[in-house]
Amino acid sequence: MPHIPLPPEHIGIRGAMAFRPETAKPLNEIVEILLAGPSTLTKGERELIATYVSSRNCTFFCASIHGAIAAAHLGGDEALVKQVKTDFTQADISPKLKALLVIAGKVQQDGKLVTTADVDAARKLGATDLEIHDTVLIAAAFCMYNRYVDGLATLASDDPAFYDAVAEMIVRDGYTAAPPPPATPASTSST
Amino acid sequence: MPHIPLPPEHIGIRGAMAFRPETAKPLNEIVEILLAGPSTLTKGERELIATYVSSRNCTFFCASIHGAIAAAHLGGDEALVKQVKTDFTQADISPKLKALLVIAGKVQQDGKLVTTADVDAARKLGATDLEIHDTVLIAAAFCMYNRYVDGLATLASDDPAFYDAVAEMIVRDGYTAAPPPPATPASTSST
Repeated sequence: MPHIPLPPEHIGIRGAMAFRPETAKPLNEIVEILLAGPSTLTKGERELIATYVSSRNCTFFCASIHGAIAAAHLGGDEALVKQVKTDFTQADISPKLKALLVIAGKVQQDGKLVTTADVDAARKLGATDLEIHDTVLIAAAFCMYNRYVDGLATLASDDPAFYDAVAEMIVRDGYTAAPPPPATPASTSST
Repeated sequence: MPHIPLPPEHIGIRGAMAFRPETAKPLNEIVEILLAGPSTLTKGERELIATYVSSRNCTFFCASIHGAIAAAHLGGDEALVKQVKTDFTQADISPKLKALLVIAGKVQQDGKLVTTADVDAARKLGATDLEIHDTVLIAAAFCMYNRYVDGLATLASDDPAFYDAVAEMIVRDGYTAAPPPPATPASTSST
């Protein structure tokens, strides 16, 4: 049960956003710019960063949605998404993305843990200043979204098909244009 | 030294925002709505929540700026701001705000730590659903701002007068209208 009466027809962050549409707008704009806007990182790479941070924060709803979106951008490669969540060092991703995930993982714990050596390593593997900036901000932003979802005890779904359906909508329509995802009969478990 | 070349004339989060104006806009809108928009919580109370979370995340720049803004809204009572950072249970604030700070402190650690009992306690002391929502989102948002500031190793200032001057501008003009704060000769220490 959510801690406050959120609209029952929406689950996860969408319930919280429907409760407070004023803040929903800029919250969606941030994720639209960072994950779906123009970037030299692919959408799949950026969604993997969001998924990894959400997984480390143990926020099932966000890790599931962004994992499904990442997979959609990566040709349906769900195994790769799972490998990034479990141990990205062994995943079939670029060395540059691995270096960015090191930075994201440190930001998830505490931004002060990021060292000059971490940033230099990413830069030597081809990361630009903007990619480093966006990695830090994606990781920081998901520390917000995850806490928002968890701190209100929003509902999640146990049904992988639910996340696939929402991912399809977001890939097609974007974060700011997408209508709220439909509720499903399985929408009863907490985050 | 910041990890990436941020505009040297701006310090703290303003340097990061000047580097990436696209994301600066919604980032400022969130804080404008939550801390300065219409609310049944006073601006002083909301700034105290932001200050408390930033202090717990040990982000000197954010704790200093929002502490100065809180003090400005609280008749210049800097001792009260310091007491909230040190031990809010002994501070001269309302029992309702203390209950909301318990929730904010848990969100700062992990949103899943917030219990039904925490929320019931706040509600019994007069907190509304919207106040509980906004407390959770303020705490979550500052976990983002703090990590953004720290993860890029932005510069801070050692000069309390700098924070007072910025606070005065933000109190007067708001978060979205305020021009970037001026740099100061003391802008050399890290966060």
